[in-house]
Amino acid sequence: MTFWTNAQLASIDRMLNPRSIAVVGATPRMQYGGRFLAAAMQAAGRVNVYPVNPRYEEVQGVKCYPSVTELPEAPDVVGIVVPYHAVLDILRESHAKGAQSAIVISAGFAERGVDDRRELQIELGRFAQESGMRVSGPNCLGLANLKADIWASASSRGAAGLTGPVGLVCQSGASAFGPFLTRAVDEGIGFTYIVSTGNEADLDFCDFARYLLDDDDTRVIAGFIEGFKDGRKFVELARLAAERGKPIVLIKIGRSALGSRAAGSHTAALTGVDAVYDAVFDQYGVIRVQDYDDLLQVSNLLARCPRPPQRGVAVVSHSGGISSLTADMFGQAGLDLPPLSERAQDGINGILKGFGWAANPSDVTGYANSNDFPAIMSYMAEDAGVGTLVVASAGADAQAEQVIAQRDGSDKAVAFLWTGTRGADSGLPMLRRAGIPVFYVPDKLAAGIRYLNDYHDWRERRLARGFADAPELTAEQAEASAKLAGGGALSEYDSKRLVAAFGVPTTRDEPAGDAAAAVAAAERIGYPVALKVNSADILHKTEAGAIRLNLGDAAAVRQAFAEVTANARTYDANAQIAGVTVQEMVAGGVETIVGVSYDAQLGPILLFGTGGVMVEVYNDVALRRCPITRDDALEMIGEVQGARLLQGFRGAPPCDLDALADALVRVSQMAVQLEGSLAELDINPLMALPAGQGVRAVDALAVRAA
Amino acid sequence: MTFWTNAQLASIDRMLNPRSIAVVGATPRMQYGGRFLAAAMQAAGRVNVYPVNPRYEEVQGVKCYPSVTELPEAPDVVGIVVPYHAVLDILRESHAKGAQSAIVISAGFAERGVDDRRELQIELGRFAQESGMRVSGPNCLGLANLKADIWASASSRGAAGLTGPVGLVCQSGASAFGPFLTRAVDEGIGFTYIVSTGNEADLDFCDFARYLLDDDDTRVIAGFIEGFKDGRKFVELARLAAERGKPIVLIKIGRSALGSRAAGSHTAALTGVDAVYDAVFDQYGVIRVQDYDDLLQVSNLLARCPRPPQRGVAVVSHSGGISSLTADMFGQAGLDLPPLSERAQDGINGILKGFGWAANPSDVTGYANSNDFPAIMSYMAEDAGVGTLVVASAGADAQAEQVIAQRDGSDKAVAFLWTGTRGADSGLPMLRRAGIPVFYVPDKLAAGIRYLNDYHDWRERRLARGFADAPELTAEQAEASAKLAGGGALSEYDSKRLVAAFGVPTTRDEPAGDAAAAVAAAERIGYPVALKVNSADILHKTEAGAIRLNLGDAAAVRQAFAEVTANARTYDANAQIAGVTVQEMVAGGVETIVGVSYDAQLGPILLFGTGGVMVEVYNDVALRRCPITRDDALEMIGEVQGARLLQGFRGAPPCDLDALADALVRVSQMAVQLEGSLAELDINPLMALPAGQGVRAVDALAVRAA
Repeated sequence: MTFWTNAQLASIDRMLNPRSIAVVGATPRMQYGGRFLAAAMQAAGRVNVYPVNPRYEEVQGVKCYPSVTELPEAPDVVGIVVPYHAVLDILRESHAKGAQSAIVISAGFAERGVDDRRELQIELGRFAQESGMRVSGPNCLGLANLKADIWASASSRGAAGLTGPVGLVCQSGASAFGPFLTRAVDEGIGFTYIVSTGNEADLDFCDFARYLLDDDDTRVIAGFIEGFKDGRKFVELARLAAERGKPIVLIKIGRSALGSRAAGSHTAALTGVDAVYDAVFDQYGVIRVQDYDDLLQVSNLLARCPRPPQRGVAVVSHSGGISSLTADMFGQAGLDLPPLSERAQDGINGILKGFGWAANPSDVTGYANSNDFPAIMSYMAEDAGVGTLVVASAGADAQAEQVIAQRDGSDKAVAFLWTGTRGADSGLPMLRRAGIPVFYVPDKLAAGIRYLNDYHDWRERRLARGFADAPELTAEQAEASAKLAGGGALSEYDSKRLVAAFGVPTTRDEPAGDAAAAVAAAERIGYPVALKVNSADILHKTEAGAIRLNLGDAAAVRQAFAEVTANARTYDANAQIAGVTVQEMVAGGVETIVGVSYDAQLGPILLFGTGGVMVEVYNDVALRRCPITRDDALEMIGEVQGARLLQGFRGAPPCDLDALADALVRVSQMAVQLEGSLAELDINPLMALPAGQGVRAVDALAVRAA
Repeated sequence: MTFWTNAQLASIDRMLNPRSIAVVGATPRMQYGGRFLAAAMQAAGRVNVYPVNPRYEEVQGVKCYPSVTELPEAPDVVGIVVPYHAVLDILRESHAKGAQSAIVISAGFAERGVDDRRELQIELGRFAQESGMRVSGPNCLGLANLKADIWASASSRGAAGLTGPVGLVCQSGASAFGPFLTRAVDEGIGFTYIVSTGNEADLDFCDFARYLLDDDDTRVIAGFIEGFKDGRKFVELARLAAERGKPIVLIKIGRSALGSRAAGSHTAALTGVDAVYDAVFDQYGVIRVQDYDDLLQVSNLLARCPRPPQRGVAVVSHSGGISSLTADMFGQAGLDLPPLSERAQDGINGILKGFGWAANPSDVTGYANSNDFPAIMSYMAEDAGVGTLVVASAGADAQAEQVIAQRDGSDKAVAFLWTGTRGADSGLPMLRRAGIPVFYVPDKLAAGIRYLNDYHDWRERRLARGFADAPELTAEQAEASAKLAGGGALSEYDSKRLVAAFGVPTTRDEPAGDAAAAVAAAERIGYPVALKVNSADILHKTEAGAIRLNLGDAAAVRQAFAEVTANARTYDANAQIAGVTVQEMVAGGVETIVGVSYDAQLGPILLFGTGGVMVEVYNDVALRRCPITRDDALEMIGEVQGARLLQGFRGAPPCDLDALADALVRVSQMAVQLEGSLAELDINPLMALPAGQGVRAVDALAVRAA
């Protein structure tokens, strides 16, 4: 599916790189319209800026036009700061004039939570898409091109010289031009573009991020998202980003019901939905962070550092206490600080002469601020197993110069844990200017380095493995899924036939209309067998007393038939009962659960867990967007803690993980192939038998899409 | 047990509030000795400062003395900055002179990792304790009294006007006078005292913290700990701190093996030990944080805020995006943002006139910077269910003044989430000066507010409940534990008799030396029974094939006797075998596990988990230091996820939680009573039967202390 057209990307390009900007609603007063004009005017001389306001001849010293129509040229972008009810007319007029794009600052649309405003917003979006004059907003704060120093924003904040490798796209304008911009200025972290998308009547986060994928100067895309307009578009974006090697780093609201409520989300099962986002982010290499500083610092780290050639980290500090805490937090984050080689130890000890500690982490005391520090850093960084060097200190410019030189002369990643004041006037500013990633507390740096390594490792695996595809439906599969027409649940028997048609092994089972047929079936299957009522109306068969297990002979089968059918009738007098199914008993396996659901935003989702009490008590499940590859399946299996049960627990034989992975792949493909007709699928349990013996779906429940 | 003497506290008092300071090793050059003198000289006029160095007549413009002996008075504190081998002589000389205390800056002791230096350090500590002239260090950076502006430290850093309610004690001097001091200056967070304790040859973290408990100006104790010299002393400190209502906030190294390695710890099972620390911190109301900023910000929040009268939090911001993220992080931290009352909503809507969102969180747009903001804050803060008001914004002094006035006029806690630059020159400095706790990212503020509420709730519960005590050993218990003399494990039979003597119900079981005796025992107990080999040498009875379950009649018991004893002999030909035990079978319960171990630092530790696979696969256990109260026991039970199994899972009857809690209390008391003779105890499984039917220890293993 194609989510983006060249015309759309060209319109975004005009919006972000305008040669002319009109500001409709420009005013002398420094409110939204006045601020937008003042911001744009900073580029006067490089960009033609036209205030539009029938009430003025001149605004802020610039000739003002009564309408867009009367402008001397068709503007690349029209900034719109007029009351909500006038916005659509201005858009129409701008399009008629030949404008290429528009930024609607005006509020009063869907965020007001009333129907007519929502409809107005929809109309606005429709106009943008039909006309081809694409729109950012409404209810946004505009955007900025830091590379060309062009600010098309209604924020009072701007910043010169803040060019850097991060592209920032936020739905919240007050966040983009508030915490993100001011903290970036604090920390000297630079952007290519800053975009606020507001209500996203037309262009959304994904569209701008897609544009940034084509921008060579943008090495990382940073985003702040309250909710996705289209989850599938995001998935496609993430896929493309992975191919191009541009990490996406996100804050995404929805960690808790409170956040979703505040962001105006009305999804029913909030935490469940969020777990799905986490899973899909992991699957597509998207890095999710928590706060303003994280988003900036992690994005900057990923943009500034090469892929570390090894996962090991070396830490050098002037203080034992700082070394210990840094090592502790790095260990907690799952990072490895490999012991130093003898060569490195001897080399450093030769310098330290008994003061400090030549190890990893190294506490080199005052030598961190001496002419010997470059040699110490070099011994550590160039040691085998080290891919990243961390300097934890707070020195003067001399130390900063040494660290910058170390970075410039090596293919290792270098990051600084600044342990002094954030307002330092020496050392720190030099590090920032040189693009050395700086963190201020060890746990945050640990998380960052973990992301840096994990991202590149993930990408290598993913590119080698490819993204999964689902094959076409076979004739047999199409026939088996014909029963999915209409709503409601399939019977266990039909559900198992369905999954069998898609290649998932099931227990042998046969329907039987009377006791004699049941005995005949049992003889064919072989004792012991299980008997279950065969009815799409009775889903809780155990509760209904409509299951009998381990029946060893014909007499037991006959008696069970009578009991099961009688109990089922007692349980639900109106249930349609088609006799029983006679099933092969499966012993000696480990219970697992495999499920499919369809997320409104993200599409088909596969669930895997170890079965029984585990999944209910510990919620010990792995989730993936469908389809998945075989390696994805093995990863999923390894992710659940209950995987230990599958690997031969307490002397039991290891389970058939090959067959289990195969079943997961097949169910994931089935989920894609049946999208639209299937609503839910649960295989519970899917018994994982000892290695070589495969898996068996013992019970299954397919629910048809309404 | 008493860990502190009045003489010791008096010596610490002299060290922290000296009227005279000698600096032995004072130099003109600004290295350690020179810096110590310069720092002390800042208090000249209020404090007598005496440089001591035979090489100079005068140092830094001050008359210098050739030795401590020749000083004109006995100094309250002697700062020692001489080579390691000269330290002990200086200490002896200082004591002879009548000095009250000493700070040893000199390094070269135990941190060098060689035996003679370790011994020298031990000697130093012994001298301090025997002489009564107590010592901080060696290898520390000294200390500072911020209240009186007296700096007895060898750091180049000082700060005027940094008085505040937090007492800071760090083992690492470079951390105390590095990140902690510089960040505190950045954020305007003030201290009563800053103490670095270094190697802690004599006085340790707990001693200084104990002193701070008596200091009225210290409202919170903040600490940075690499390892405790004496865990039991820390526990006693925490108990006293709880009684006085002074929270202890800590960074404690040991989250990971890397940190422990870096801190020079050599404990075997590192992560296990850390889990024990977490449990004991929770049990004693100690707040553990991760990083420099956390320690300062959380300590400041707890020191500056009253106990919130309700747990609910109200959040007001000028931005929808900031509101959403804040709410999301607050929800994730388990905080509640109660919906606003109609009155508050109407009141705020009356002000907003359609702009913004009167809710919780509120996005009040530009009204956050208007004369109407006080009314908005008041509506939110005074709403029922709100105990804490959070303002998320970045305004000018006018806004800061409004927030300060709101704080001053209310009994609610008030905190600020500053969303602008950390270097702001308006608004932010005023908030800091007024002691409004300021955070910079929402997740950190969320954690802080959670700690604030949890601490006070915990303390109320703890003071109501009291700390548990263990009763005296009864004669019967003493007799039952006589078998614990010597090393090694007790047999299952003896282990169960032991726990039974301490009040834990066990299954009925009888030893039987031959098959006939086994049958007789089975008839007394009632069928079905279990047979297990009775041998202290065979601990893995299942593996040895030395268990038979569910024996229904005499024939089965006879056959089982033969098999069990034969298998046991095959398994271990050298095992001492005393026949079998015949045991009552227990059905219909839930397996739990109860264990006791002894932590070298923290003493007797109780473990509880739901049994079977759960505890192994999910490590789903709760830990407490012994003894515990009944309420502690119920909390422990509720803490494990598997507690759901105990509460009536999938239609099973709820278990006897009363009896289970009672058993936990009894085992915890037993652990205290048998300290020194018991090394380990495992009751696995302890079957929790349906309500009213109690619990039964089915298997137990007691290991004797060597």
